Amino acid sequence: MTAPTFANESIVPVSKETKDIAISLRDKAINDDSAYEILKSLTTEVGARHPGTPGEKAGIEWAVSKLKALGFDKVYTEDVEMNGWIRGLETAEILLPSYQKMVITALGRSKSTPEGGLEAEIVHFKSYADLEKAADGSLKGKIAFISNRMQGFKDGSGYGPANIARSKGHELAAQKGAEALLIRSIGTDDHRNPHTGATNVAMGYTAVPAVALSNPDADQLVRLMDYGHIPKIRLNIQTKDLGPIVTKNVFGEITGRELPNEVVVIGGHLDSWDLGTGAVDDGAGVAIAMATAAFIKDNAIIRPRRTIRVILWGAEELGLIGARAYAKARQDDGSIANHVIGSESDFGAGPVYGLQSSSNVSPNAIHVIDTMAGLMGKLGVSRRSGNTTGGPDMIPLSALGVPALNLMQDGTDYFDLHHTPDDTFDKVNPEHMRQNLAVWTVFAFIAAEWPGSFK
Amino acid sequence: MTAPTFANESIVPVSKETKDIAISLRDKAINDDSAYEILKSLTTEVGARHPGTPGEKAGIEWAVSKLKALGFDKVYTEDVEMNGWIRGLETAEILLPSYQKMVITALGRSKSTPEGGLEAEIVHFKSYADLEKAADGSLKGKIAFISNRMQGFKDGSGYGPANIARSKGHELAAQKGAEALLIRSIGTDDHRNPHTGATNVAMGYTAVPAVALSNPDADQLVRLMDYGHIPKIRLNIQTKDLGPIVTKNVFGEITGRELPNEVVVIGGHLDSWDLGTGAVDDGAGVAIAMATAAFIKDNAIIRPRRTIRVILWGAEELGLIGARAYAKARQDDGSIANHVIGSESDFGAGPVYGLQSSSNVSPNAIHVIDTMAGLMGKLGVSRRSGNTTGGPDMIPLSALGVPALNLMQDGTDYFDLHHTPDDTFDKVNPEHMRQNLAVWTVFAFIAAEWPGSFK
Ligand SMILES: [Zn+2]
Ligand SMILES: [Zn+2]
Ligand SMILES: [Zn+2]
Ligand SMILES: [Zn+2]
Repeated sequence: MTAPTFANESIVPVSKETKDIAISLRDKAINDDSAYEILKSLTTEVGARHPGTPGEKAGIEWAVSKLKALGFDKVYTEDVEMNGWIRGLETAEILLPSYQKMVITALGRSKSTPEGGLEAEIVHFKSYADLEKAADGSLKGKIAFISNRMQGFKDGSGYGPANIARSKGHELAAQKGAEALLIRSIGTDDHRNPHTGATNVAMGYTAVPAVALSNPDADQLVRLMDYGHIPKIRLNIQTKDLGPIVTKNVFGEITGRELPNEVVVIGGHLDSWDLGTGAVDDGAGVAIAMATAAFIKDNAIIRPRRTIRVILWGAEELGLIGARAYAKARQDDGSIANHVIGSESDFGAGPVYGLQSSSNVSPNAIHVIDTMAGLMGKLGVSRRSGNTTGGPDMIPLSALGVPALNLMQDGTDYFDLHHTPDDTFDKVNPEHMRQNLAVWTVFAFIAAEWPGSFK
Repeated sequence: MTAPTFANESIVPVSKETKDIAISLRDKAINDDSAYEILKSLTTEVGARHPGTPGEKAGIEWAVSKLKALGFDKVYTEDVEMNGWIRGLETAEILLPSYQKMVITALGRSKSTPEGGLEAEIVHFKSYADLEKAADGSLKGKIAFISNRMQGFKDGSGYGPANIARSKGHELAAQKGAEALLIRSIGTDDHRNPHTGATNVAMGYTAVPAVALSNPDADQLVRLMDYGHIPKIRLNIQTKDLGPIVTKNVFGEITGRELPNEVVVIGGHLDSWDLGTGAVDDGAGVAIAMATAAFIKDNAIIRPRRTIRVILWGAEELGLIGARAYAKARQDDGSIANHVIGSESDFGAGPVYGLQSSSNVSPNAIHVIDTMAGLMGKLGVSRRSGNTTGGPDMIPLSALGVPALNLMQDGTDYFDLHHTPDDTFDKVNPEHMRQNLAVWTVFAFIAAEWPGSFK
């Protein structure tokens, strides 16, 4: 018996060979445009990919065919049942004090207005909390308008606090007796592009029509009220509950050479909102994950020990629908135990600056994450504290104990584009996509190659 | 007889008193928000002001009432006959290779498509010059697409060369047999906001439906074609020729104390395109001109010698319609001779950096312009060479010999917003509006006070 290399026998080192391969992959990936090119194809040849639309179907076909073309070992899909919802006509006009058109969009699963629209005066609340203070039933015949603006931060931490108006404002407005809910878009830009997004409704419709104004339109209403006017508006929203539909999670695997049943999960969500072409949300994540696995397969001198499973999640935008179904099925069949570690890229196409690990990562594996971060240092990434779910679609897996990493992206501009018509390919910087590919390659290769357990 | 102060007796100096008043006005105006506040009121309480719409009517009423509230000595309007045109429904979709919605807008006086739209394949031309090379009648059943992008410069000099596709592309497309004309928006931004604008059609309709795509949508079509696809699109444009309508030029005067019949003309155009609220084009110019005259009236220790006539021009966007009518009437009644000098502010809300004079300015008056520029130096303005018409609405007056100045504004961002839904008040920097007020005050006060002739 030889003496153990480490004092704690359960600590398995990252071998020099593994590190050397990761370094060589990193230094090649930083000059590789494959993630950018995949994103270009998806956003150009498919476009928007909202569940229940021809675009979603085209996106799934594109994904299967692109994964095959990239030479993935296994390519398959899994059906997920859900309830569809699509937007139709949506117009809004100020009628008084002067006629003006506004730029708005319905929030996810918004109820329709009566045909031809509804006309009502605005009642202004500076925040969701202010609307909470209104007396129940006090807004009969009015439209509740919540005007606070999301704050912009690199890490997107302004999103959560602002988002309650989007997710639950419709219920609160209904409780107060309002005819409809109007919110300032949850976004950081100043363009006439409204930001859509999910409400807390899983199927059916919101309690009242729920609509987001572009930031300049919200400013306009606030200014009108500052002048002492009480704007009367006409809102015409026609939407449709599609009832039961089927979406898909799409899978591409690079089979592990030694432990093919153990999987490292990387991915992005394939669906997008309908207004843009889903470039930063989340074509970028889809492209980064696909390119990472393909790049490792094509460039590493050995096939990694474990399987890298790329999951292109379905219907994230309507409530992590694909991700929840995937996790539940793995919990039911016991294969959740084979999920070694995972991460989703779903915060745009900005460069990665930090690496965070979840509390599911064993203390004995923390040194591996530190090693990854060390190798990513040259790319501008540093090790960060804090817990993480590993991205929205990793939430259900994290809840089941799967270790997760967060490859933290600079999201300074993300909420300028998020869920708007402006989420298009031209906004993406190819240099940033190369950096993402290099960072993800270091993570995925080491995670799949290191023989120890992350749990 | 005393000896003349200057060798050339016809050179009349700018007195020290005049300069001192100009300096004192300048140094007060740089802290005055009245131009910004006037612009806020116009863009908020009125909004878009397209000829033949309720917004234009509201804008004219607003202008008359605001000029009166500001205490102008004379406030009046003059009717101008014109032919109206308004946009209705406008949608466009890519049908092949995949279904995608596009963001487009009809150009001024565009013809409608057949009801329900027209469906056709795109034929791509990289410029107007390339479309010229196509054989007549060769585009039967096709849509001509001109894809070149306007270049952005501080002085807006990229606008003219790109603009021929907008103004005359429809005729050329018709000559080549195309069903419709599709152009990349004449603009420098990357947002899903198309840029409308006039065609060379004075009344009636364009030869074929003429439509501008947002820049990201134009990029998308180009990329699809780079992939080898031939996009088939559906275009549905419904517009309406309103026939004869009446617009107005709106006037506000500060009557001169000594030479009330001699007028210094300053102004902006009151009309705007219908998509935004006409903040940078040209609410800013309207506000700067109104604020300048009112500021001089309220703050100069003497009422200027000559009359300052603020002209808020009507229907500039559809071909300088108000300006042409005004100049023709003054030519007909001989009062053109009383027009001492003039300028229009119609290049956004950016700061003034240069002062240019037209060739109509007499050599004996050049020293006055130099003096103005010298007093503006502290504000960041320098004297510039070159000729000028003094702004679009000054073209007809310049053609009749009226001396003109160009208060050159930094237009770096102007064509990001120009003629789009994004031309809204939030884009305007109050500091820049104060600088404009100070610069215009120096010009208008000296022009109205200096006793010599600019001709
Ligand atoms: Zn997302
Ligand atoms: Zn999203
Ligand atoms: Zn203009
Ligand atoms: Zn214009």
